[in-house]
Amino acid sequence: MNIVDINCDMGESFGAYRMGRDEEILDYVTSANIACGFHAGDPTTMRKTVRLAIEKNVAIGAHPGLQDLVGFGRREVSISPEEAHDLVVYQIGALSGFVKAEGGKIQHVKPHGALYNMAAKNAELAEAIAKAVYQVDPELILFGLAGSELIKAGKKIGLKTASEVFADRTYQQDGSLTSRREANALIEDHQVAVDQVVRMVKEGKVQSVQGEDVSIQADTICIHGDGEHALEFAQYIQTAFAEASINMKKVSES
Amino acid sequence: MNIVDINCDMGESFGAYRMGRDEEILDYVTSANIACGFHAGDPTTMRKTVRLAIEKNVAIGAHPGLQDLVGFGRREVSISPEEAHDLVVYQIGALSGFVKAEGGKIQHVKPHGALYNMAAKNAELAEAIAKAVYQVDPELILFGLAGSELIKAGKKIGLKTASEVFADRTYQQDGSLTSRREANALIEDHQVAVDQVVRMVKEGKVQSVQGEDVSIQADTICIHGDGEHALEFAQYIQTAFAEASINMKKVSES
Amino acid sequence: MNIVDINCDMGESFGAYRMGRDEEILDYVTSANIACGFHAGDPTTMRKTVRLAIEKNVAIGAHPGLQDLVGFGRREVSISPEEAHDLVVYQIGALSGFVKAEGGKIQHVKPHGALYNMAAKNAELAEAIAKAVYQVDPELILFGLAGSELIKAGKKIGLKTASEVFADRTYQQDGSLTSRREANALIEDHQVAVDQVVRMVKEGKVQSVQGEDVSIQADTICIHGDGEHALEFAQYIQTAFAEASINMKKVSES
Amino acid sequence: MNIVDINCDMGESFGAYRMGRDEEILDYVTSANIACGFHAGDPTTMRKTVRLAIEKNVAIGAHPGLQDLVGFGRREVSISPEEAHDLVVYQIGALSGFVKAEGGKIQHVKPHGALYNMAAKNAELAEAIAKAVYQVDPELILFGLAGSELIKAGKKIGLKTASEVFADRTYQQDGSLTSRREANALIEDHQVAVDQVVRMVKEGKVQSVQGEDVSIQADTICIHGDGEHALEFAQYIQTAFAEASINMKKVSES
Repeated sequence: MNIVDINCDMGESFGAYRMGRDEEILDYVTSANIACGFHAGDPTTMRKTVRLAIEKNVAIGAHPGLQDLVGFGRREVSISPEEAHDLVVYQIGALSGFVKAEGGKIQHVKPHGALYNMAAKNAELAEAIAKAVYQVDPELILFGLAGSELIKAGKKIGLKTASEVFADRTYQQDGSLTSRREANALIEDHQVAVDQVVRMVKEGKVQSVQGEDVSIQADTICIHGDGEHALEFAQYIQTAFAEASINMKKVSES
Repeated sequence: MNIVDINCDMGESFGAYRMGRDEEILDYVTSANIACGFHAGDPTTMRKTVRLAIEKNVAIGAHPGLQDLVGFGRREVSISPEEAHDLVVYQIGALSGFVKAEGGKIQHVKPHGALYNMAAKNAELAEAIAKAVYQVDPELILFGLAGSELIKAGKKIGLKTASEVFADRTYQQDGSLTSRREANALIEDHQVAVDQVVRMVKEGKVQSVQGEDVSIQADTICIHGDGEHALEFAQYIQTAFAEASINMKKVSES
Repeated sequence: MNIVDINCDMGESFGAYRMGRDEEILDYVTSANIACGFHAGDPTTMRKTVRLAIEKNVAIGAHPGLQDLVGFGRREVSISPEEAHDLVVYQIGALSGFVKAEGGKIQHVKPHGALYNMAAKNAELAEAIAKAVYQVDPELILFGLAGSELIKAGKKIGLKTASEVFADRTYQQDGSLTSRREANALIEDHQVAVDQVVRMVKEGKVQSVQGEDVSIQADTICIHGDGEHALEFAQYIQTAFAEASINMKKVSES
Repeated sequence: MNIVDINCDMGESFGAYRMGRDEEILDYVTSANIACGFHAGDPTTMRKTVRLAIEKNVAIGAHPGLQDLVGFGRREVSISPEEAHDLVVYQIGALSGFVKAEGGKIQHVKPHGALYNMAAKNAELAEAIAKAVYQVDPELILFGLAGSELIKAGKKIGLKTASEVFADRTYQQDGSLTSRREANALIEDHQVAVDQVVRMVKEGKVQSVQGEDVSIQADTICIHGDGEHALEFAQYIQTAFAEASINMKKVSES
């Protein structure tokens, strides 16, 4: 039987601002990436989200981002590798406070937004981030884009890694994601998206937009929690996985 | 022989802004209260300060403050006990990331500025803060104003506490500090300040501005690191303690 | 015929975070209080909100708040009068940039949240705020709680003021609002709320919770834009005013 | 007689953090670029700096930066042209509040740090910034790197511009600055720096690091206010200009 993890970004509310339907989405995922206060999230939101994840037996991950609240961590900032290292250490640490207070543990670290994208392509940043994770706790699992520099850096330093794939994004012949600037970057049809992800999990392959198959490692699937149809898609994917005999499990348990 | 700890606020630089002469002051103190990014400090400053403290064998403490960078955490904010709890958990956690990465451990927690003052008088806030510290790690030592609600709350929940006294502040008959709004709040003369602190350590007594002796517990002495004469006073106090046979030791070792 | 202004807080979205249904609410109010980036709002949100208000012929006001985004400006901060002055000048200025760029003008200034409440009771803060408004532009109208220190300070320095009343809040015998901590602070029934406000406008009177009539000046009515029933209540009040022959007009035109 | 403006960044202190020796440097410059609270500066610092500049008869400029306090606005952020426009409008506006309150006027706008550098090379950003300045007040003078996209965009939209040169930086054959990553980017010798700038002003030429002369427009010279030798260099340049019969004048008066 095939096994895969499903992860979703969580805890992105901030003060009086609400974002996402965390409590409902938590019923459909195995790993939660919890915002740590830099691109989103605040201390009280973090505590509540950690508590919810523990209650629903969902694995907890730190989701460190760039210090750019107004840009939601989606804008690239030309940080140095040293700065990347330090902001990842800080944010994993901050989340670990709540995890200790609530009696859980951190399973993984997944960088957010622009930090995730920069770490996919920039080896120096990727190594600084992997080192940060390793130094805080070498047992943490590093989540990164399948085939990225971040996954390479994680393996190199000795971390367990989880290669992430996307149900609703198309792929290029070299295994990279089609840029969002391209018209065909997103897969809007739920059935097409689910078919793609089932094949990635079962066969380790995805058809590129150029029409040929590409090998891809699919340890964990990212679903988005803030869209209108997030919950609907989460339910859809769960049903499809049951039919395809794919078992959803936390990365740390597979 | 008498034993006392000397603590100083550290790591208060922020980005391009420099504050304090941490590296030099670290030679004269036994405990460092390291800012955690809310009222001062940033991830890179935190990492460097933690490393310096470890190198100089100075005990590390988290120094959580209100989220008010422009006010340097010195302005009271009407936060709820829940908010106080969560911001303390967050900041201890953030510092713990660097401490783990650098191979040290956190000895203590001392709230900063307005949070310290509010926790001295407000029992509800004090209990929320003590609970936060206890939940993250019950072995942490809570630093608070001698005779304050924070020390009471720490003892009540089962934390080891350290009662803090000030060399350069005058005391009221009830053991509280003279408000800075009063003309006689500060002791400017180094010799008078040192004499006061030596007596607090050796006799457990301080003469109030009203002229009578007050009992006071002196586990740790706060010196300020950002004034013009900080280093000079630190050296002065060290010499005076040697003459008075007072031994400076980390709270965790006494 | 009676005339009154209706104002509502606007432009409180921030980056990826949405708040309020500004575009719809603007059809039912005569004055918009636009957040200026301290407690809520960001430059792009401000520009869009200014443009919308101009398009819908709604008067524009600066809505300066405390620099406390995570607390949405609702927590008191012990700022000095000088700090209050300067943050009000800054925020009026920032909004004026967009107003000039879009070809409009600022009609009024209404402090937000905790700053509004502090300025209602603290004469020194109130005078600092009134001075800030006057210095930037003596033609600006100062909005404040009816009977408050802020209205007094505005009159004293020579500003035109607008006394604000609340449809959905109960009043004490001294004309102050019942504290939100009291069970009877809010009026949940739309009809009761509308009846109260119609009477305040037409008779200059409101019945206190103690049961006696109190004199009250009602130049402008605050409605809330972020509640679930905000739009519904705005429509309700519009209908009631038409029936009661109350004419809604911008303060600057009455 | 030759005429040139000398400008310096000012008002970069923040809360308890001090930066620069503004009061002294103001005696040696004709234009002050005042930080507006995004990369540096806070409302109280802005008010004080505006007041000082007025007292010393130095022209006031807005110095808008990226919203990156911890990075001091020196790290590139991948903002959209719309975001660049809006943050420039906001910051000019904010400064204009203090200028109105203190009875002065804004002469110019000079983007700070990474925003300045991005606007030098990226035509789309440059046009968005020039449009922002023009929309707030078409009489404002736009400061930008000599030969940059920003100067082109300013001229194109109809703004008066001032081409800026640097005394202490070397130039490439194409008129651009040598990257700070190169060993020969900075001119450390005061005499060499002064000679270069005198020639740029008098002859409109600078010798590139490749050894050939390059034409350059020198309307205003940037000196740095935060270095150790800032004041010394400011005095040095003043003496050299007197000897070379170069008259220092505000751009708006030349």
